[in-house]
Amino acid sequence: MESNKLNKEVNRNLFKKEVKVFAPATVANMVCGYDVLGFALEEPGDLVIMKSSDTPGVLLKSITGDDGKLPMDPTQNTVSACCMMLLEDLGLTGEIGVEIELHKQMPIGSGLGSSAASTVGGVFALNELLGRPLSREELLPYCLHGEEIACGHPHPDNVTPALMGGITLIRSDDPLDVVNLPVPDKLFAAVVFPKVDVPTRDAREMIKSRVLLKDAVKQWGNIAGLVAGLFRSDYELIGRSMEDVLIEPVRSILIPDFAQMKEIALSLGALSFGISGSGPTVLAMCKSAEDATAIKDALSAHLESVMVESYAYSSKVNAEGPKCLSN
Amino acid sequence: MESNKLNKEVNRNLFKKEVKVFAPATVANMVCGYDVLGFALEEPGDLVIMKSSDTPGVLLKSITGDDGKLPMDPTQNTVSACCMMLLEDLGLTGEIGVEIELHKQMPIGSGLGSSAASTVGGVFALNELLGRPLSREELLPYCLHGEEIACGHPHPDNVTPALMGGITLIRSDDPLDVVNLPVPDKLFAAVVFPKVDVPTRDAREMIKSRVLLKDAVKQWGNIAGLVAGLFRSDYELIGRSMEDVLIEPVRSILIPDFAQMKEIALSLGALSFGISGSGPTVLAMCKSAEDATAIKDALSAHLESVMVESYAYSSKVNAEGPKCLSN
Repeated sequence: MESNKLNKEVNRNLFKKEVKVFAPATVANMVCGYDVLGFALEEPGDLVIMKSSDTPGVLLKSITGDDGKLPMDPTQNTVSACCMMLLEDLGLTGEIGVEIELHKQMPIGSGLGSSAASTVGGVFALNELLGRPLSREELLPYCLHGEEIACGHPHPDNVTPALMGGITLIRSDDPLDVVNLPVPDKLFAAVVFPKVDVPTRDAREMIKSRVLLKDAVKQWGNIAGLVAGLFRSDYELIGRSMEDVLIEPVRSILIPDFAQMKEIALSLGALSFGISGSGPTVLAMCKSAEDATAIKDALSAHLESVMVESYAYSSKVNAEGPKCLSN
Repeated sequence: MESNKLNKEVNRNLFKKEVKVFAPATVANMVCGYDVLGFALEEPGDLVIMKSSDTPGVLLKSITGDDGKLPMDPTQNTVSACCMMLLEDLGLTGEIGVEIELHKQMPIGSGLGSSAASTVGGVFALNELLGRPLSREELLPYCLHGEEIACGHPHPDNVTPALMGGITLIRSDDPLDVVNLPVPDKLFAAVVFPKVDVPTRDAREMIKSRVLLKDAVKQWGNIAGLVAGLFRSDYELIGRSMEDVLIEPVRSILIPDFAQMKEIALSLGALSFGISGSGPTVLAMCKSAEDATAIKDALSAHLESVMVESYAYSSKVNAEGPKCLSN
């Protein structure tokens, strides 16, 4: 056993040569739970391939699918920077070498937790490569470090569901207190990203620092209703509760045809409709795969009719989180 | 079957001569759930004795324990006014006569839902006297009418748990959407009323109409954590979540030695400590009857040491709500 900051046993016999990890996109806020709720999707998600190397250090070998948007400097790239931090805390810096390929398989800056997926993929992959010395919960601080690099603040609302899977509640971010919520059997999401640019920082700056107490009361009635609905698998209650009276009226202005898309989704049986994270991706929560697919297609078709390109996905809520793909 | 507004069958064969009903005190807000959460206590509570009479109409025969504070005018007294409304909607005005005795067994204007207990006692008793034509849920609008008479607004956060029992969430008050939450086995409350005057209206007026979004986020993280804790019977999570960063800092100023009482309660093992309703009653949530009793006694003793009289109670969370006592 090594002496290291984490005081974790690292067993070299368990080390792997290569791992291939899928890490999921996530929907922060879940409409009524601004800054505290989030859930993971089954698709899209990023792919991280990590190989052990004889040269000590973290080598960011290649990134695909990012249109050249992501930094290749290993101290600035969230994936490599988090891995360097984890190696350091395990006392393995200067000894262990890894090579990383990051395959971005989702749009960046879309409100689907793109940076969180990459970070979680990297940290999860490194932990697997090293024979899993840390639990998932213990990996969270390293993933938060990635969000700090990517967004300037360690927001936990995407990395937490991306890492833990399912639906997560950040009851408190200081000290961090994460509650895993139950995932009802038949909970599906349609997410549609209209290709317009809404950087997370701008979307955050639109939000007023003060809100009406009566609106806040509605919001916490809704979040309490949503949590009860999740425990009871009460889909109607989930739908009624996923309403956002505070953030949506402001942020939806940045999203093309938001009101029309909401009308379309609800008319096709969506339980609820709102903004995913800071947008511009929109979310329709559904109680069947068929509803989610039909709504995804209808929203894409609508955006096409108004000359807006889009990426659209439909997916079950992903209870598992990141996973190793067969090697 | 009568023709009436409620379109309910009233079966005269089921009518009773007399009922005696206990209706519980309630703790609104449950610390972190301002205006949306509440729970019922096993004690204190009010007693309503209702007898059928040959003289049509609602006679408010006597009130005890109110120090003459409550109106005897049957249109101004919440108990009789609600009963008149229910008889009217059942098409029984001018035909059925009832006599009411109200025995107040708890302090008025204390933050324990005194008016709600009386109203619920009256409405529940009348429904029992008439052979139970309405379900509990159907009685709620009549109880809300009582809160409107007593407080100027039909606040549902005390009448709902007083009528339904247990812990209730008002997800929305317009349209009214009530969610019954689970009551963990070992959830106890110590409630202590320091005898100082804090009228509900004044306590409401202290609250600012705008709040910081970051505080609201903490509050809804907490209410979501509390609901999850109730479903999982996770007492530590319940305790961590019952924290109020918005209302308590303002209202606690009106409560003698609030900070000292909080320290005493937490040092004796309370899961959480806060204000009951609009105060000045304080609440310590506990995970055993012994803790609740010890904390109740310690808080009373502390108040006595600073020359403040108090009423103190300890009780399990009351899952049942109002009940008929043996006749």
